[in-house]
Amino acid sequence: MVLRPGSKTRARIVTVDAGQWRIRRDYLATEEPLEIRLTAGGTTTTVAVTMRTPGADFELAAGFLHAEGIAGRDDIAQISYCIDPQVDAEQQYNIVNVGLATAVLPDLPALERHFITSSACGVCGKASLDALELRGCSVLPTGSAVDPDVLLRLSGALRDEQNLFEATGGLHAAALFTPGGELLGLREDVGRHNAVDKLIGWALMADRLPLHDHILLVSGRSSYEIMQKALAAGIPIVCAVSAPSSLAVDVARRFGITLIGFLRGERFNVYAGEERLLAPAPRAPAGSS
Amino acid sequence: MVLRPGSKTRARIVTVDAGQWRIRRDYLATEEPLEIRLTAGGTTTTVAVTMRTPGADFELAAGFLHAEGIAGRDDIAQISYCIDPQVDAEQQYNIVNVGLATAVLPDLPALERHFITSSACGVCGKASLDALELRGCSVLPTGSAVDPDVLLRLSGALRDEQNLFEATGGLHAAALFTPGGELLGLREDVGRHNAVDKLIGWALMADRLPLHDHILLVSGRSSYEIMQKALAAGIPIVCAVSAPSSLAVDVARRFGITLIGFLRGERFNVYAGEERLLAPAPRAPAGSS
Repeated sequence: MVLRPGSKTRARIVTVDAGQWRIRRDYLATEEPLEIRLTAGGTTTTVAVTMRTPGADFELAAGFLHAEGIAGRDDIAQISYCIDPQVDAEQQYNIVNVGLATAVLPDLPALERHFITSSACGVCGKASLDALELRGCSVLPTGSAVDPDVLLRLSGALRDEQNLFEATGGLHAAALFTPGGELLGLREDVGRHNAVDKLIGWALMADRLPLHDHILLVSGRSSYEIMQKALAAGIPIVCAVSAPSSLAVDVARRFGITLIGFLRGERFNVYAGEERLLAPAPRAPAGSS
Repeated sequence: MVLRPGSKTRARIVTVDAGQWRIRRDYLATEEPLEIRLTAGGTTTTVAVTMRTPGADFELAAGFLHAEGIAGRDDIAQISYCIDPQVDAEQQYNIVNVGLATAVLPDLPALERHFITSSACGVCGKASLDALELRGCSVLPTGSAVDPDVLLRLSGALRDEQNLFEATGGLHAAALFTPGGELLGLREDVGRHNAVDKLIGWALMADRLPLHDHILLVSGRSSYEIMQKALAAGIPIVCAVSAPSSLAVDVARRFGITLIGFLRGERFNVYAGEERLLAPAPRAPAGSS
């Protein structure tokens, strides 16, 4: 029997606390490479090798290909673990093969160069935004407004469901919510970008894209990469427990995404798109300063 | 005058706290792409494009090339911003050119394939460790033991010096300490791996490698990538404020690195190499349970 790598790994560790040493068993978040291969018309190529936490590997592959603009739902005919007899059985679970419906493989090196030289200005934040537009991303529809109180409940809901984080203390999470705050899906991974790929890959394969009526919550910070993935999936509201980068805010403003940061306790910051939030109810003037 | 991108960016944001909306100005950690180019014998090629926080760009390039096994201190003849007249002046600060002392460029695609197919087992954690050995990494010397009390003071020292984090709340940090806990250098970046590359690149260009008598502290979690960089620089003790991944622990055990996690307050966990820590002084038996 071939054992698939698990999402957590047992380890013997030493805990040092106030000068006392204690040996105990603990769980670590598993980190293993995943190779994503593309097959079309009898030809196979490696697209990427990413360090990830095993689990939801097919979703990760689908989400990655979608976010990079390499393949959409209709392009994907089949996803499977490696069946190459030349690869050790044990390792076949670290190679995912995506069979395309098309007759030929897309021109991957060209896609990469695209990113680097997509504008006259060479390599810069603006060129990175232009690259998203060239890939077909456009400004997201405004849709209906969301109650700020719904947002305040999201991080609690995320933490309640983070089973692997609970066990290992070392995982990022990405979760998808309805505008009313109902949790639709959650994925965990040592890599924040992988957690988002798994979540969006799941929605993609369930034919739920575009996610115009949904809220994404990520456990850490928001960066260009996270916003790029949210945009490709059509998600209009992105919340993060920590800070955004400057380029994350630039993506949000250019493509009409509401970007929330520092979503903790009773407060949060809005970096872009506050028009999607219901304004606060008027307060009684008494007692106001 | 050409403005270099700064490490922080001003932004107008909305803060929502207990139902109250307030508009204020805030600082964001700048995220901009950096293209690293290699030149040798009149030929130039792009090695990588990484999203980074501007600042210490030459160190980032040097540290990256060293960690990937592409170039050591003696291979690097010159580092400069782009002087290609075809690139907009403003963007030249996002392109770093590393001039090699060698007559020809190294075979980069081969290096990449190396990683993927470095062992009979295809792609897996073990192959990732084998790849480090093939690249010339070996078990680190044990050296002298460190007082656990020194480790307990490191996160406080890191936080005190994290100026950009203070301003933006959104940056990772990597710091280098002596065995006595003296801070030698600290670098910040939106990417944890970039912060480590900047720090080690600084030490590399200052001819301080190998760092056999030093301690590395990273602000977040420790992963394969972080351990690979520490190993390439010869750092025997790696501390992280959060959890390690399974593969980080595997690298530490295979190459004799002391790996500390959850370094917070009065406590920490030791995942590998506890022989580098001074055992606790015997306590008075009175009052012990």
